[in-house]
Amino acid sequence: MTQTYRLHYAPDNASLIIRLALEELGQPYATVLVNRAAREHEGPAYRALNPNGLIPVLETADGPIFETGAILLWLTDRHGGLAPGPKDPSRAGALKWLFFVSNTLHPALGMRFHPERYIGSEVAAQTRMRIHMRGEITRHLDTLEQAAGDVPALFDGAAPTVIALYLGPVLRWTALYPPGETDWFDLAQWPRLRAMARGLERRASTRAAIQAEGLGPTPFTAPQMPNPPEGSAT
Amino acid sequence: MTQTYRLHYAPDNASLIIRLALEELGQPYATVLVNRAAREHEGPAYRALNPNGLIPVLETADGPIFETGAILLWLTDRHGGLAPGPKDPSRAGALKWLFFVSNTLHPALGMRFHPERYIGSEVAAQTRMRIHMRGEITRHLDTLEQAAGDVPALFDGAAPTVIALYLGPVLRWTALYPPGETDWFDLAQWPRLRAMARGLERRASTRAAIQAEGLGPTPFTAPQMPNPPEGSAT
Repeated sequence: MTQTYRLHYAPDNASLIIRLALEELGQPYATVLVNRAAREHEGPAYRALNPNGLIPVLETADGPIFETGAILLWLTDRHGGLAPGPKDPSRAGALKWLFFVSNTLHPALGMRFHPERYIGSEVAAQTRMRIHMRGEITRHLDTLEQAAGDVPALFDGAAPTVIALYLGPVLRWTALYPPGETDWFDLAQWPRLRAMARGLERRASTRAAIQAEGLGPTPFTAPQMPNPPEGSAT
Repeated sequence: MTQTYRLHYAPDNASLIIRLALEELGQPYATVLVNRAAREHEGPAYRALNPNGLIPVLETADGPIFETGAILLWLTDRHGGLAPGPKDPSRAGALKWLFFVSNTLHPALGMRFHPERYIGSEVAAQTRMRIHMRGEITRHLDTLEQAAGDVPALFDGAAPTVIALYLGPVLRWTALYPPGETDWFDLAQWPRLRAMARGLERRASTRAAIQAEGLGPTPFTAPQMPNPPEGSAT
């Protein structure tokens, strides 16, 4: 028995990265909208899929998978493409940058969007964290800009790897969230990452995501707030 | 030409996890002590290996690899063992918990050890973060305790996977650091994780690490501050 993948998603959430990967791989998938406004992801049915209550989950014949980086790697190992295989000498580079984006850059965004999860309810401390993390995100993007010079194939948006598929949305979210607090961010500061984002925007996978999640015409290089046909981003 | 692995390490740093993995795999390796007291990891020679200046780095025939999770996965894919292979139906579970430990639990420890990296220099805000993150770490360990019931093989310290090898040291550091601020932590609260840690302590890999890094007789279940034969943990 074959099973079509089921992607539990909300518009403009981390599920966007997995949508792009499934589109790039040409794998059929069904989507299941998570009703964020009703906090469905915190309810028992969703927590049975992911006890952390985070989006995305990908249901597979091998059971539900969560963690964006884990799903990306599992899909690429299962279907080939999007990253060098286990015996390829460039595998090491793909893994180290995937983990870096997953455990350092992506959480740094989360500390700006949801500082209360890290520091509690005091607003002054939250503001302090939001400001401090701008500098950290800048530093991480500087590091990735350098890596894009060292290992261009990993950061090629026109023939995207898991790294480019992860970073396109991350650049989008850095430019958009938290709303009204993103003037500090200018993608032109990182020309290789901008070129990567431009390449990604020309992919059919991006066009499919734009249509499904209402992301606007240039979702990675000059993003607008989402206007999704169903569901809500928050 | 074959090349022996070179592990850049400091005692009781994240390199400990990679040492355990190399021992478990029976792979020969040389160690290169990073002089933390002289901040050698922040100098240009070390940053040429890892631009983030973090320990560990593993030098391989395919170049230097950093990020603990990436090294663990690369080693297991290269040599077999320590995790289900890419085609195994239980691969998904290994990947999702590996990423969770890498991007959620491990950074939560970092926020307690080095709050200044996330919130800047104000001491009151740092204290707030340290206290808040106790609750987060507790919650993450609760989640892992549940997972250890659902997927016991992944959390078996007596036949360790990458998950157990990562978690043993994480439990140690949670119990030890920051010094004087760990009374809240009691491993007995998570009996499956404690059993995992006990199993890990009986492995020859742990004995090798104890000797090399001065970790004391029960480094995961009842740890003492390290007393390394060379180098320093901080």
